[in-house]
Amino acid sequence: MMRATVMYGAGYVRIESVPEARIVERTDALVIVTHACICGSDLWPYRKLEHTDTGLRMGHEFIGVVEDVGADVRSVKRGDVVVAPFMWSDGTCEFCEQGLQTSCLHGGFWGGTELDGGQGEAVRVPQADGTLVALPLGRGDSLMPSLLTLSDVMGTGHHAAVVARAGAGRIVAVVGDGAVGLCGVLAARRLGAEQIILLGRHADRIALGREFGATDVVSERGEEAIERVLELTGGLGAHSVLECVGYEESTNTALRIARPGGAVGRVGVPQDAAMPAAQSTFRKNITIAGGPAPVRAYMAELLPDVMEGRIEPGRVLDRVTDLDGVPDGYRAMNEREAIKVMISF
Amino acid sequence: MMRATVMYGAGYVRIESVPEARIVERTDALVIVTHACICGSDLWPYRKLEHTDTGLRMGHEFIGVVEDVGADVRSVKRGDVVVAPFMWSDGTCEFCEQGLQTSCLHGGFWGGTELDGGQGEAVRVPQADGTLVALPLGRGDSLMPSLLTLSDVMGTGHHAAVVARAGAGRIVAVVGDGAVGLCGVLAARRLGAEQIILLGRHADRIALGREFGATDVVSERGEEAIERVLELTGGLGAHSVLECVGYEESTNTALRIARPGGAVGRVGVPQDAAMPAAQSTFRKNITIAGGPAPVRAYMAELLPDVMEGRIEPGRVLDRVTDLDGVPDGYRAMNEREAIKVMISF
Repeated sequence: MMRATVMYGAGYVRIESVPEARIVERTDALVIVTHACICGSDLWPYRKLEHTDTGLRMGHEFIGVVEDVGADVRSVKRGDVVVAPFMWSDGTCEFCEQGLQTSCLHGGFWGGTELDGGQGEAVRVPQADGTLVALPLGRGDSLMPSLLTLSDVMGTGHHAAVVARAGAGRIVAVVGDGAVGLCGVLAARRLGAEQIILLGRHADRIALGREFGATDVVSERGEEAIERVLELTGGLGAHSVLECVGYEESTNTALRIARPGGAVGRVGVPQDAAMPAAQSTFRKNITIAGGPAPVRAYMAELLPDVMEGRIEPGRVLDRVTDLDGVPDGYRAMNEREAIKVMISF
Repeated sequence: MMRATVMYGAGYVRIESVPEARIVERTDALVIVTHACICGSDLWPYRKLEHTDTGLRMGHEFIGVVEDVGADVRSVKRGDVVVAPFMWSDGTCEFCEQGLQTSCLHGGFWGGTELDGGQGEAVRVPQADGTLVALPLGRGDSLMPSLLTLSDVMGTGHHAAVVARAGAGRIVAVVGDGAVGLCGVLAARRLGAEQIILLGRHADRIALGREFGATDVVSERGEEAIERVLELTGGLGAHSVLECVGYEESTNTALRIARPGGAVGRVGVPQDAAMPAAQSTFRKNITIAGGPAPVRAYMAELLPDVMEGRIEPGRVLDRVTDLDGVPDGYRAMNEREAIKVMISF
């Protein structure tokens, strides 16, 4: 047996013994987890999951050491330090070949009732060749937090910035000051944006956002936030808007602060079946793009910047715990005591 | 006085005497209309406009001869044959310079209570330099229907195709077999698409759609239409989808038949405040783009193809009337007796 995080319902997270992870398919790898995270998206079930006797294995962001590989695995080997994206993918289907691994025809999510999650001692990794990326060795642990964000939040913020066409000469607005929003600020700055407006209301997060490159902060909400952004942009709105929350209100704000011809990158998981502002986005020819970030595709681009210290997205991981501290980590993130919690094994 | 089309409420369209069009601003031109259209979008007020004593001047697609110009007009002169886009624009603001004239900071719509509409004997054209495009002279009337579609429907179908990234190697689906949908088929074919699926149910329109380049026709609706498109696309959906209707059902169909990573170009004016399928489009990283087409920007690209007969979008104009026949033209389009009506003065 091994120990892992299991969620049984809203607010009910336990560390318990589960069956040992092991190789099943020839394309699997077995990874001993050394670092993992709790994700903002883990808070959705933490707030509203109905009780389940089975329990759900949790965690989709992890770094670890390869313990064993199946007979067909070629790209990683025992002893490699690897980072996993928040979804696994075969790397060969037509969507993977286009760099959209989150739509892999043979991929899927970690955890749940069928697979191991990252918030546990070890993980069976399906489609290891398409999924895992080996990290350069010989570096100290100081880079681990930033490397770990390549699993999800940094790649996700980058995705929002890319599909919103952030870059030089374009005013960027980032809706949401959570870990993804902060990484979105960092990504927009990295892509060359000079004016970056962060919409958020938590002093600690805003302070980090300013260090990441935010030039303006809007702490109002709703119509007032929209007015404030228009004031900051000569009445026209932002060229590129990153929606990093997923609520109807934040989505409405994001869609309405984009200027005519602008683009909104959605990476906050939508909590509603309908999208607001269908008519105003139409009138203004707003492009709406985004979705689950193909972070696997972005690792090649972002990894050198992390390794060489040009970006430090790991600063969003403002609390570290061991596995036993994970339930309290959920509580701390849910109560906004922590931006994002790292688990060190 | 001159004669023009005025709408007073749902189903109530009259031809009546109105004040003569004349130059007011130094940037105006006065155009004597020779050809105009009734638009599918004119049917929205025709179906639901509440009674107004003032009446609304109608028509936003026209070709005519310049009768006079204001002192500051440079690009057109008396005697020029000109085509007008469905919105007027100054041609110099930052959105015009980006080719998004439908968001011109100093532009607007024809007709209503303040301005002349195209469905009348003459039009005062504001911002004539930014708005009008002079047509090459010395050609017969046979090209007039196709040239007239550059005012709106051909440029609009083209916009849907462009923002949906239609082109070689990409499967295109067109939702709607009205004049815009049919022009969307033509535009997708022109941009190099080989497989073009037309979703529509009117035999005459489908027949023209096939001549314009549609390779498959789906006449089912709702969930059945979605299943049928998936069958035709190896279960994956279309790369590029053109939404040419604007109803919630058609929008839902358009968004759901796009494959992961695909793009939907919206040009049907949305009739609802919310957009459906917010979650499935997110999961699949669908790009949603479009809006009022900057047809003024597209005229330069499309005009040579019309002049040299490579495309014949004017075939969507399947009925011709004089000004007195306009009320019956509205009726005929509303009852789907005609795809689109041309008015010849």
